Order: sequence, then C-alpha cells, then structure tokens
Amino acid sequence: MIEGPVRMDQDIGAKPSRVATVMTTIRQRIAARNLTPGAKLPSVRALAASLKVSTSTVVDAYERLVAEGIILSRPGSGFYVASQAAPFTLAEVGPRLDREIDPFWISRQSLEADDEGLKPGCGWLPPSWLPEESLRRGMRALSRTDGAVLAGYGSPLGFPPLRQLVARRMAEHGIEALPNQIVLTESGIQAIDLLCRFLLEPGDTVLVDDPCYFNFHALLKAHRAKVVGVPYTPSGPDMAVFAQVLTEHRPRLYVTNSGIHNPTGAVLSPVVAHRVLKLAEAHDLTIIEDDIFADFEHAAAPRLAAYDGLDRVIHIGSFSKTLSASARCGFIAVRPDWIGGLTDLKIATSFGGGRLAAQLVFNVLSEGSYRKYLEALRARLARAMAEVSAQLKDLGITPWLEPQAGMFLWCQLPDGVDAADMARFALERGIVLAPGNAFSLSQTATGFMRFNVAQTLAPPIFDVLREALKQSARQP
Amino acid sequence: MIEGPVRMDQDIGAKPSRVATVMTTIRQRIAARNLTPGAKLPSVRALAASLKVSTSTVVDAYERLVAEGIILSRPGSGFYVASQAAPFTLAEVGPRLDREIDPFWISRQSLEADDEGLKPGCGWLPPSWLPEESLRRGMRALSRTDGAVLAGYGSPLGFPPLRQLVARRMAEHGIEALPNQIVLTESGIQAIDLLCRFLLEPGDTVLVDDPCYFNFHALLKAHRAKVVGVPYTPSGPDMAVFAQVLTEHRPRLYVTNSGIHNPTGAVLSPVVAHRVLKLAEAHDLTIIEDDIFADFEHAAAPRLAAYDGLDRVIHIGSFSKTLSASARCGFIAVRPDWIGGLTDLKIATSFGGGRLAAQLVFNVLSEGSYRKYLEALRARLARAMAEVSAQLKDLGITPWLEPQAGMFLWCQLPDGVDAADMARFALERGIVLAPGNAFSLSQTATGFMRFNVAQTLAPPIFDVLREALKQSARQP
Repeated sequence: MIEGPVRMDQDIGAKPSRVATVMTTIRQRIAARNLTPGAKLPSVRALAASLKVSTSTVVDAYERLVAEGIILSRPGSGFYVASQAAPFTLAEVGPRLDREIDPFWISRQSLEADDEGLKPGCGWLPPSWLPEESLRRGMRALSRTDGAVLAGYGSPLGFPPLRQLVARRMAEHGIEALPNQIVLTESGIQAIDLLCRFLLEPGDTVLVDDPCYFNFHALLKAHRAKVVGVPYTPSGPDMAVFAQVLTEHRPRLYVTNSGIHNPTGAVLSPVVAHRVLKLAEAHDLTIIEDDIFADFEHAAAPRLAAYDGLDRVIHIGSFSKTLSASARCGFIAVRPDWIGGLTDLKIATSFGGGRLAAQLVFNVLSEGSYRKYLEALRARLARAMAEVSAQLKDLGITPWLEPQAGMFLWCQLPDGVDAADMARFALERGIVLAPGNAFSLSQTATGFMRFNVAQTLAPPIFDVLREALKQSARQP
Repeated sequence: MIEGPVRMDQDIGAKPSRVATVMTTIRQRIAARNLTPGAKLPSVRALAASLKVSTSTVVDAYERLVAEGIILSRPGSGFYVASQAAPFTLAEVGPRLDREIDPFWISRQSLEADDEGLKPGCGWLPPSWLPEESLRRGMRALSRTDGAVLAGYGSPLGFPPLRQLVARRMAEHGIEALPNQIVLTESGIQAIDLLCRFLLEPGDTVLVDDPCYFNFHALLKAHRAKVVGVPYTPSGPDMAVFAQVLTEHRPRLYVTNSGIHNPTGAVLSPVVAHRVLKLAEAHDLTIIEDDIFADFEHAAAPRLAAYDGLDRVIHIGSFSKTLSASARCGFIAVRPDWIGGLTDLKIATSFGGGRLAAQLVFNVLSEGSYRKYLEALRARLARAMAEVSAQLKDLGITPWLEPQAGMFLWCQLPDGVDAADMARFALERGIVLAPGNAFSLSQTATGFMRFNVAQTLAPPIFDVLREALKQSARQP
C-alpha cells in the first residue's frame, strides 16, 4: 500500500522546483557514495555557487533534508551526512492468504488494500462517494481558525457545538438527550470500547447478534468478556432465544446495531424493540445501541434509545460512514449519572480527544449542503443496491432480505458453496470479500456473504465471483 | 468553557451576511413564538420578497436551519418548525472545588479551563507557542489532497511516510527501528493503553516512578493492574529500591518517562540506564519508555531503547507537546514479532486510526521550518525556566533540580505548606496548579508542586502564590 505524502511545495513560498533540485542532487551524491555517512556537505555558499542557485534555496533544501533525517546540522560547523542515511524501503504489505478467517480477516484485508483496490467486502463507501468538497471547505476554514483549535487539547466532553448538534440530530430520531449527556470519542468503535471498560468486569457475559459486526467479537475478546450470540431475524433478535439466554447466562450487556443492522440490513420492528426493552428491564441488562448507519436511512426505523429514554440503553454513533473515516470522531449518549465516570475513563485512555476532527465534522455537518449530499447519497445507494442485487441473483447469490436502506446486502450463496473458500479464491485475484462466518459467533454462516453494494459495482468483481462459483461446483 | 464554532461563511460563496440575517429572522420568530413548533414557515418566494433578498439566499438559510435541527423540510410541502426546536443551553462546566485531588484532578481542571485561563499546573504549552503557521500550511495542503486521505480509513500500521520519518528521528537518538516496527496510534496515552492491553492480565504488577505522570496511575487503574512505585532520583529510579521491588513483586511491566522525566525534569544517567536494563533482563521485565518530551531536549539524554535495541524496551512518543495536541497522533516502536498482535488490538479498539491527523503531522514535520521552530522554542523555554525559577525562589519555592530542558519545574514548597491546600486556594481564584500528590503513588509529595514554566509567566500567578503562602503561614 502506497499513500503518497502530501506535497507542500505550493506553500513554501520560495522556488519549490529549485529546492527540490538541490535536494535531489544531494540525495544522488549520497546514493552514489560521493558523500558517505559522516561526511561534511559542501558549504551553503559553495553549493549555491556551483549549482547557480541562491543561498536561501540551498538553506531551504538542507533544512528539509535534515527534517527527513538524511543529513544532520551541527551548529557552528555545518551539515553532515547522517550515519543512518540509507533510505528505508517501504515493505509492501501484500494480502495474507494464509491468515485464518477470524474476526480480523476482513478488517485487515480491507484496510491493507490499496485505496483503488476492489473490496466488495469492506464496510465503508468509496471515498469518492463522501462529501469531498465539504471536507475541503471545512479544512480550509480550520486552517484559518484560532490557534487553540489547531494545537490545543479539547475539553473533556468534547467540542460543545458538535455535542449540541448531535443532540438535535438524535431528536430527529426521537431520542431525547441533552448535550451534557453526550461525550465525543475518537470513533464509534472507541465509544463502545470506552463503554465496555466502564461497564464490564473480565468474565462478564455479553450478548451479540448472530450474525453481527465482526469487530464486536474482536473488541469483546479484548475485554475478556464471555460472548453469547442470539440469532437475528428480519425484525430484530430472535425473541425466544433472547429470553432464554437472559435467564441462562445473565448477561451484563447487549451490544447491537440498530437503524440498519450490520451485516443483515434488517431493521427492528416496534414490537421487538418493545419486548427487548421489557426483558432488559426484567433482567437488569444494559444495551449499547450502535447507530452508525443512521444517515443512510430513508425513514427512521425504531430505536431502542428512543423507547427507553437513555435509561438502560446507551446510544452511540460516528461520522465515519457518511462524512469521513479519516477525521476520527464518534459519540456516546448516556444517562447523566454515568457521564462523570465515562469522562474520567476517556481522559485516562485518550486524554483530550480529537479537537481538530470534531471541529471538522462540525464544519461539514453544519453546512446546509450536507443534507442535500445525504439525499443524493441515499438515492445513489438505492440504485447500487438494485443493480448489485440483480447481478448477484443472476449468479444464484440470493439476498437474505431486501434492505430498506444502507450499503449492505447479506446474501446466501448457492448450495454447497463455502464463503471462506470463495473469499480466499477472490483474494488471490486481488478482491476482498466478507465471508459470513467472520460475522457469526456460532460459525453457522458458512453459506453467507456480505456485499457492500457501493463497492460491488466493478464488472471484474462479478467475473471473479462467477469463476469462484464454477470452481466450487467442480470441487463438491 | 466556550469554544466558538468555526465560521464557514467565507466559504459559502453566496452572500454570507444575508444568509445569516435570514437565519436570525427565523430564529427570532421562533423564539418570540410567532412561529410555534409544527408551524409552516413562509414559502421561500414569500420570505425572499418580504426580506428583499434572493430566493437562493432563503433556500440557503432554510437548509442551514434544517442542518441545525431548528426546522424540518417536508419534500413537496415546505419547511416546518421542528418540534424539538427549543435551543439547548450549554451548561458551563466550572471548576469543581469539591473534587478530591486524585489522578484526574489536574487533567480535569486543565482541560476544563478556558483556553485563555491561567494554568501553571497543566502539562502542555500555550497554543501560541506551537507552530501555528506550519499547522495552517499543513491544513491547507490537506484541503487540496486526495479524497481518500480526507475521507478514507488509514492502513493498519498507519501512514507509511510518517512511520519512516519517525524511524529516522529515533535514529537521531540512537534508537534503531525499521518503519515496520512502528505502529501509529491516536496519541501517546493511547499507545500506552494499547500496550497495556497487549501485555497485561488483570492483577499483574506494574512499576512506575514515584513521582510520575499522574495519568499513568489512572490508566493502570483502568487496566486493573497492581501498581508499585520506585522513588525517582535526579539520575533515574532509585536502583536499590528498583532491585528490591523486582524481587519482591515480580512486575510484568515498568512504565517510565525518559528523555525528560515528568514531573521532575530529571534525565537518566548512562549507568542507571544500563543497570535498569540488566535488572530487567534478569527478571524478565518489559519496559515502556514514554519519550513524548524528546523534542524539547538540547542534547539527547540516554534512552533505554537505544541501549536495549527494542528487545524488551518499547519506545512510544507523540507530537502533542511540540506540534499539536488537537491533531491526535502518537506511535509505538516495538520488536517486530509483537507488531501483528498489537495491530489486531489497534483494529479491534480503534479500527483504521487517524489518517488525517497523521498526514497533518507529517506535513508539519517534513517542512524544514520545524527544526528552526524547535530551536526557537527550546531557547524560549530556557528563558522561561530561568525567569520562573528565579521568581519561585523569591517566594521560597525551591526547584528540586534545575532541569536541562523541557517545561516542568518540580518544586519543594516552604516547610509546612500543603500543596493540595494551595491548589484549592488557587483554583478558587481561577488558577490551576499541579499539587505533588497527584503524581505520587506513595502520597509523599505533599510539599511538592509541578510548574509548567511556559504557563507560569503571568504576574497574577505569583500574586496568588504569594497570597496562598501567607494564608498557609497563618494556619499552621
């Protein structure tokens, strides 16, 4: 994976191309061993004369080479080739074909893939689908803002106007929360992590949906929790099993996606939401409702937090899915008496939080154009959903349900096809898939695959899927 | 605490002041209950005519009010006052005078204080001392960069050019590490947190210096570690106690600051560094060396990681102290065979990490001007150190040692003066101090106070200190 450094030449003021030329000259002399480690570089004046550039150009070039660690400055003496000057080569992190299909499989493969790689299995939109121009405007506004915003720590709960805005957005989904009940975090997953620290003792039992977002498994493992799964139906968790598990295992916590469920695309029905809460109350169960897909919805589905009023339900969200995954910012909305303890934990583990990211997110969200962008995005996703769904059906890959919204299509593969085999086959051809068992605690999703419709539009993906299915038919 | 939202008016393109005027008009009508919740707003055309502005100005204003949750849009019908439109008031978080002087005391008071508040006890430089212009340039460069950088997740280890640059900087301190041994994190404290997750089981014993950075206590408590302190001397930990504690408590981990020790300003002597490592080897102790103050040094002090070669020493750092605390970015340098496990934990708890922050840090660090800025900063700190030290001595407040570099001055108060009493006295007058026992596991630093010289230059601070000492003399 190569991420290019951002060139700052435009901002240097003085003659970027000449500075670059001087830098290249020195690098070449070092590479050719005309200048060996420890050797003194030509004086600024001498080099300027020999290269016919100004002394300020040479000074600029030398300083940049110092910043890069290629040369050293010894005040009063001059510049010297650093002893560690051999350039480090970036080891390419290729796909790891040998890795077990564990909870990290999809994360690793997706994150390690090139920005332009094909990854129908990944959990985010292509960056080009995100509000790039708003982000650019937001960054420019930030570049002109107060120095404390650029350089200082944030306040413990996080940027107040963003907490206020989050409270208003939640109100649109029927969830009442005051800004003081909202703590900003560095991401949605960090929100859940913080809550697990706050609520769990090692060995506590936690309920998850089966299937559920694979990273819940990884995170709960890190907390040494005992994890129990409840099958997910098109209207929410299977209530018979849910009731039974509460009695048998006395879980402390239930971690679930609502709004749009990951990976299934299902939404809670009001009756299931109500029953979940009644059972939670009877068994003193706390619920973390992860609502990071909220902005994909055409119409708001039932939220546990809306029914419960943030009593035993904790609502979390982030802006990674529809705004930016690069500017890390999430939030927790929680009962007021838990705010103090959570904030102490936040300080202990991440101190002031990401002030810059919160400001950027606020800038984008408070622009009127964000709403327009979301409308266009939902329409675009709906089109992609229809198109990918149709093409998958042609291959005999059948959606488990037709999601009302969002980017995920949870699909059943043709009889006898193993999703893990298929994922390995595709990875060898540079395509990252999301095999079902990465989401399944019971490992009963061997025949399922999650597709991100926004990332499944490229024709080569279907060619490889077709090949994989053929291959599978040959090896029954 | 009020942090003002960044105004984006400059970027809207169309008539910012008119849009703002329309927004204010609507807000006032809602506040005056001329428009009640659920009421339909004037049509765009009608309002444009009555306010003598263009329809696009009204559309813009309405969209911004929708983004703020003040009004709702019903497609095909018009705009309506939201039912939740009552504006939330920001509750001011004032100083909590009743709060115990626990490990969070200083963090909370410092983070909650206004950007302009007086806080000689806080652990960072005033933002105006940081490289504001480079940060602005870096932000502008980012606003022009690739969309994937603005919106996409980072790679698991983090932005490769920054890891390369960190490796080069470490090499200047004699620490050899390949970029592939470096994992970027979201901060220095998150680096330590991740390592604690990786290395500790609940109940494990961890060594810290006494005194040490107070947040180590908080973080280790979050990990349910048993913490044992070793007195710190001007040349490092007290070796007799260190040896004894290793035998008695068999700690898994030792967490320490090197470079410049927090809060004492001491540096490791080579002989102590060597002995610490010999004992660590004999007792199979892992060491986390927190080097976040490295850039303050005039000359590099001994580093445990340099002697050890990243075998049993893990080196961590961040850019919060000399570059920006708002753009969160830290790093871990560790033996290669631990990278895989650490990265899995990083994914589980924070997923892709902060790509935008890493890019911004890289932009600033790779500018030649960063080195010049550091030189000026060190000189400025040295002057502040001399000045504050002299003024404190005049009050009978005596530095424990004269630090070679950095921002901290660890001081002994006049006989019988209790640092916690003094801190409470100062806080009532709006000044945040750092009382000794917040740093001391054994609570034996009652008569000590840490001063951040960059934050102790304002004359009112000395007036309050003088008053506090008088008050204390009256109540023996």
